[in-house]
Amino acid sequence: MHEHDVLTTILNMPESSDPRVLIGPGDDLACVAPVPPEGGIAGAPRVLVGVDQVVDGLHINADTVSWDRIGHKAIHRALSDVAAMAGRPLATVATALIPVGASKSDVDALCRGLFEAAATCRAPLVGGDVAVHHDTAGPLTITVTALGVPSGTPVCRSGAQVGDQLVVTGVLGGSLQSNGQGHHLDFRPRLAEGVLLQAIFGRDLHAMIDISDGLGRDAGRLAEASGLHVTIDAKAIPLRSDATWQQGLGDGEDYELLMAVGGDALVPESLGGGDGACGVRVIGTFLAIDADQPLVTVRTPEGESIDGSQAGWDHGQ
Amino acid sequence: MHEHDVLTTILNMPESSDPRVLIGPGDDLACVAPVPPEGGIAGAPRVLVGVDQVVDGLHINADTVSWDRIGHKAIHRALSDVAAMAGRPLATVATALIPVGASKSDVDALCRGLFEAAATCRAPLVGGDVAVHHDTAGPLTITVTALGVPSGTPVCRSGAQVGDQLVVTGVLGGSLQSNGQGHHLDFRPRLAEGVLLQAIFGRDLHAMIDISDGLGRDAGRLAEASGLHVTIDAKAIPLRSDATWQQGLGDGEDYELLMAVGGDALVPESLGGGDGACGVRVIGTFLAIDADQPLVTVRTPEGESIDGSQAGWDHGQ
Repeated sequence: MHEHDVLTTILNMPESSDPRVLIGPGDDLACVAPVPPEGGIAGAPRVLVGVDQVVDGLHINADTVSWDRIGHKAIHRALSDVAAMAGRPLATVATALIPVGASKSDVDALCRGLFEAAATCRAPLVGGDVAVHHDTAGPLTITVTALGVPSGTPVCRSGAQVGDQLVVTGVLGGSLQSNGQGHHLDFRPRLAEGVLLQAIFGRDLHAMIDISDGLGRDAGRLAEASGLHVTIDAKAIPLRSDATWQQGLGDGEDYELLMAVGGDALVPESLGGGDGACGVRVIGTFLAIDADQPLVTVRTPEGESIDGSQAGWDHGQ
Repeated sequence: MHEHDVLTTILNMPESSDPRVLIGPGDDLACVAPVPPEGGIAGAPRVLVGVDQVVDGLHINADTVSWDRIGHKAIHRALSDVAAMAGRPLATVATALIPVGASKSDVDALCRGLFEAAATCRAPLVGGDVAVHHDTAGPLTITVTALGVPSGTPVCRSGAQVGDQLVVTGVLGGSLQSNGQGHHLDFRPRLAEGVLLQAIFGRDLHAMIDISDGLGRDAGRLAEASGLHVTIDAKAIPLRSDATWQQGLGDGEDYELLMAVGGDALVPESLGGGDGACGVRVIGTFLAIDADQPLVTVRTPEGESIDGSQAGWDHGQ
């Protein structure tokens, strides 16, 4: 059983015709309206919602990491999707399925980590469910559902246009190889930045996603959803110290924002200031698709063109 | 590690002071306001939210049940909490963590079951996350987050008053022992009934819960949250055919609504009509608490008084 098989099944399910569903499955988050909207997607009260899971052995290694950091990661990972829609966090709910042999101090740390991270991000943890595994081999499994409120029109993956600039926040690569200071555990979701980018770019912010599986793979998702091709200039990729451009392209777990911005829009060099400043870089261009091309072409520093659409982490492999 | 230990940790976490949190953890669902409310809980757009998990070996046996029914149960169980708040369903999101050896046809059936049940209940499945276990022993694990919209003021567990009638819908007992026709797999959440009961009783509907762990245990939750004692008349418990009153008291997985209704309110004998009619029965009374009493006293058909507060299923044991 491979995740791709499951996703194919899910994508073949009929779309809901419910008028309260403004954005359905397939984007970073869905968007629903508690009251059926009359004034279009911008007019009614709307809620963003999505769910993510963190599983020992797949997304974390619970034997080598303190469990408060696992709690932080689970919350932050779910809220990174709120950032990617340019939303503001509203609330979270979580489940934890605990291994039979877990210690009370580990479980306390996990709960504390979940609560702390949610409160700090202004997405209070308002509910949950806890169970203990039946079988001794069952792994620690956490799910977090994030609710958010769009700050304007939610930014989907599908709005990129020919000539758009491919823009990324922060630095990429080496997220998993940083000597216990792992960015993949200690990152903060780009919530303020997502809202700020929408305020700066306005209608020029055409599409956005957060980089979880890898720049190449996630850029491919923007291109595919928008029916376009995207080229990436490897030399322009902003890198974490010691990371190579290949790592920046494929390591994943960066949780930076990747977006399509109108070709004529001015892109600031950074957001905020001082220690909290977040770099912003133009790293590529969206082009009309050509049947013979891969979704993503990377121009290497040596001037070669390679297929970048598979660069990244496939959690199903 | 026992669930009670974990829950103690969680209950000791500080309450959120976020004004958007109208009902926090501890009830069937939380209630949040996308926009901080000015007119009190009834005035603003509000969303109910909660999450539930279904784990092979704990809540179902995935070897003996077709997986579409597991999908149905996971959705219906989460929506039963929407019914218990007298809410209307809005949407659902789900996660599935699939065993390594699962067949494609089983996984297809599971996805179909989730989608079908959600669509039928008007709670469209708008998002999800699927992963395949790393270890061969990892059990099928499903979570469903339910979103709802209150039809009026959300009905909590904590509003029961001295002299209130304890009222229950449907029939109880034997949910797990019904030869593959298990009510615990095939029930439908009492969504229409929850809204209708609020319309009928209005401000006399003081508190409500759905019976998942067992009548005794869940009546105890209403009593505890309301700071009261409740007595149950065993002879009045409406029973599924062949079920004893002890089963009605303790089997659980009934997913019927259990509520506190003002002592003077007229209680109808049933809701709806024809094959879909749902019985309504007065089975007890809320009283002021006495330090020496258990939360729940059951008056047996033989006239004895017994402690009923522990009658039911403890998923942590």
